[in-house]
Amino acid sequence: MDRLRAQIAFIVEIDKLKQVLRRNYLADGSRRENDAEHSWFFATAALVLREHAKEAIDIARVVSMALIHDIVEIDAGDTFIYDTAARADQHEREERAAARLFGLLPDDQARDLCALWDEFEAGKTPEARYARAIDRLSAVLLNHASGGKAWREHGVPASRLREVNGAIADGAPAIWEHVRGIIDDAVARGIVADADHS
Amino acid sequence: MDRLRAQIAFIVEIDKLKQVLRRNYLADGSRRENDAEHSWFFATAALVLREHAKEAIDIARVVSMALIHDIVEIDAGDTFIYDTAARADQHEREERAAARLFGLLPDDQARDLCALWDEFEAGKTPEARYARAIDRLSAVLLNHASGGKAWREHGVPASRLREVNGAIADGAPAIWEHVRGIIDDAVARGIVADADHS
Repeated sequence: MDRLRAQIAFIVEIDKLKQVLRRNYLADGSRRENDAEHSWFFATAALVLREHAKEAIDIARVVSMALIHDIVEIDAGDTFIYDTAARADQHEREERAAARLFGLLPDDQARDLCALWDEFEAGKTPEARYARAIDRLSAVLLNHASGGKAWREHGVPASRLREVNGAIADGAPAIWEHVRGIIDDAVARGIVADADHS
Repeated sequence: MDRLRAQIAFIVEIDKLKQVLRRNYLADGSRRENDAEHSWFFATAALVLREHAKEAIDIARVVSMALIHDIVEIDAGDTFIYDTAARADQHEREERAAARLFGLLPDDQARDLCALWDEFEAGKTPEARYARAIDRLSAVLLNHASGGKAWREHGVPASRLREVNGAIADGAPAIWEHVRGIIDDAVARGIVADADHS
């Protein structure tokens, strides 16, 4: 029962992920999305879109990555993907968070989840490449649906959107084609500027 | 690309799950939980606790159930598990919702997700029994952590908690033992009444 108690303590602790806010808004723009909602949205999208993965993937592994990929942000906070400065010490902050949070679990599970999170972060396996593609897609879909609210607030130009999201092609080329169309549409509608004029 | 467009339309539509509120609060009692957050919490708990399933299970199938089990509530709304009256026409409302929402997907996926949702609702397979156990555990953990806030608001006595949650034993006996201890603790601390005096 010691294992179960440790696992339950971990589960109650990660409830805090529901209070970590992301930069992007819900599709209707009414409020910002939190990390728990995003993790569900990402995992479900990964499940629905799995036929578009570039390589053969173990979808259970991808969904597990989606569920746990942001847990470190309970301690480390959310880092906006377009914020280069904040990304500098992000990895070190997140490594400490992974050690504390996954460390609440029995050792074997702590090791497994740390390894799964590392795999996602490194983006070097077919599962991680596909997962990272869907993570990015999730944010693009909500930003586009909300009229580019977060993109406009942070002055993100289309050139930067293409640069950051181009990696979607490594995991899911058809989805990158779709995202490219979304970015073009955002430019056409004047939601984002085509180049960086800042 | 027609398949991809239909899948993306489904994904954007289910963003609305983030706005369906449940009766229970977050662990810290600060606000009510929504269905998207709950689905993430349930899926992640199912992953972490899978060694406690009573029977051999396909964990990928369980996690998929967790991710999609509440999507019907976008149209049908959340029904409080202790509210007998509202539960009367719940199934009919949810069947209509499943047809509309999963019907946004390509036919093969619509059929698969409807079947997965039906399997969860029926609770007759090892995966569904374990999933239903974790769904109930998720609510018990948050209610207990928040000092029984939703239980007190709705006057739910311990006898009813034991009755509704006893089914956890069908999917995960060790987890039911843990939940039984939580309910006893809630009675000892005066958070819930031991019997129904209403």
